[in-house]
Amino acid sequence: MKLGLIGLGKMGGNMVRRLRRADFEVVGYSPDEEERQALADETGMIAAPNIGGLVKRLDSPCIVWVMVPSGEATEKTMKELERRLSSGDIVVDGGNSSYKDTQRRGAMLAQSGIGLVDVGTSGGVWGLDNGYCLMAGGEKVHVKVVEPILQALAPAPDRGWAHVGPRGAGHFTKMIHNGVEYGMMQAYAEGFALLRGKKEFSLDLAQISELWRHSSVVRSWLLDLSATALASDQSFESIAPVVADSGEGRWTVMEAISQGVPAPVISLALHMRFASQHGGDYVNKMISVMRNAFGGHAITPRDKD
Amino acid sequence: MKLGLIGLGKMGGNMVRRLRRADFEVVGYSPDEEERQALADETGMIAAPNIGGLVKRLDSPCIVWVMVPSGEATEKTMKELERRLSSGDIVVDGGNSSYKDTQRRGAMLAQSGIGLVDVGTSGGVWGLDNGYCLMAGGEKVHVKVVEPILQALAPAPDRGWAHVGPRGAGHFTKMIHNGVEYGMMQAYAEGFALLRGKKEFSLDLAQISELWRHSSVVRSWLLDLSATALASDQSFESIAPVVADSGEGRWTVMEAISQGVPAPVISLALHMRFASQHGGDYVNKMISVMRNAFGGHAITPRDKD
Repeated sequence: MKLGLIGLGKMGGNMVRRLRRADFEVVGYSPDEEERQALADETGMIAAPNIGGLVKRLDSPCIVWVMVPSGEATEKTMKELERRLSSGDIVVDGGNSSYKDTQRRGAMLAQSGIGLVDVGTSGGVWGLDNGYCLMAGGEKVHVKVVEPILQALAPAPDRGWAHVGPRGAGHFTKMIHNGVEYGMMQAYAEGFALLRGKKEFSLDLAQISELWRHSSVVRSWLLDLSATALASDQSFESIAPVVADSGEGRWTVMEAISQGVPAPVISLALHMRFASQHGGDYVNKMISVMRNAFGGHAITPRDKD
Repeated sequence: MKLGLIGLGKMGGNMVRRLRRADFEVVGYSPDEEERQALADETGMIAAPNIGGLVKRLDSPCIVWVMVPSGEATEKTMKELERRLSSGDIVVDGGNSSYKDTQRRGAMLAQSGIGLVDVGTSGGVWGLDNGYCLMAGGEKVHVKVVEPILQALAPAPDRGWAHVGPRGAGHFTKMIHNGVEYGMMQAYAEGFALLRGKKEFSLDLAQISELWRHSSVVRSWLLDLSATALASDQSFESIAPVVADSGEGRWTVMEAISQGVPAPVISLALHMRFASQHGGDYVNKMISVMRNAFGGHAITPRDKD
């Protein structure tokens, strides 16, 4: 089976490797010529010089898996594919697009008879060896066509992938997955901070995280990774206390607001990331000003922090 | 090796079973005569008619594992053991005592030369077959004596148990473990509620929870259990939306306040349980009254809810 794969970064590159191991013919494209040539040399992937060249190297009906950053990069790629592909072809968006964008793009591609399958993809850099967890949305007939690819990328042909619902449902499910991830990570991190904060016990976080991996109620893959990290360093001295966030956390919270379903822990985990990014600095300055105003409480000058 | 075990409920009973499988001699006591006799018949445990009789049936130095509800029941048991045991004997508190109570009781027992080892125990009813995760606190010399018991109760002699610190550190570590558990459970539950709330996709929560178990970032033992539960029913029609809480969640949040370390997600998970227990009903009534007062917004009468 032959497919095109656009985007050869951390996720896309490993997917090419995993598909090549399963003997798929892959035509790959990324704007970085060195990157795509290195991957071609390593895996036997056919490197294409641009999206037009990629489409030309595929057999009809074409299958093109898109693995580029969500937002503008995905939008631009989808628009170009809409121009270059033909009725009966299928595009897979394996990135972290908003499900609303996916629904809009699916409708646009459908006007030219092109199918869109949205595949929420989890597993990070470990997917190459462990396989990816794949949440597919789209029309049954389109998902059926890409099923062999899903089976090869999943941990096993019969598990770790599923057709969860109509177009958009794959990215929706992945969005919620990432929202849950925000809450879980915040819960673990708070717990480890409280263990570390208990000076009188001099607890060894590497020992405890490793201990919890075995038969405890909080055992998980995130805990496995945390234990490995803590085993090599638990002072975290070189790390700034700043956590980035990407789209899914924000979209999950907006979804909760749309539905009127409370998701306070996921929301708060997101807001704690904003606070870590200094988004709350003005809030804290404002509170200091008010404390000073009513009670004469000292304000901490910037250079004394 | 011989030990006494007080408290033969869900946790204590299974611990007797696991210890008997490993050929420990166990003298067991619970106030329920039928319960202890049934367990004796099943496992070959020696049933004692009371705590005094249990101590008499042990060899010196005695080891007594206490597995009774935290608070008053544990306090009463500890006081009786203090009277009945002798210098050199060791008490293990395997329950969910507050680490501050443990420190106080340890000091009390130490005056009579009796050692106290606190063992935070995780694993629930699954511990019988999977083994328990055991977080031990206490003096090195005391933990060493009970090490063979910890090794038999743990999933394997070399993992799933550890001496994490001085007296109290075992229960402290278990307290934080449970705090993390509160946050994780709330995060998962919010995510599943948002999946279910997305009517247009008709998502199958059994399918998605099973899917996430394989190679996703949120895979965990709690997710495994959730997938099993959702596979048999996802309507939850017969379940009231009320969640109980026990001591550890509250203590974890108090610990965060003592340390001045933010634990907002664990705290909020706890407060959401209070809300589910109707602890926030008056809050909501008060807000309704204020909305009505300034804006004439309708108040929902009690019988229309």
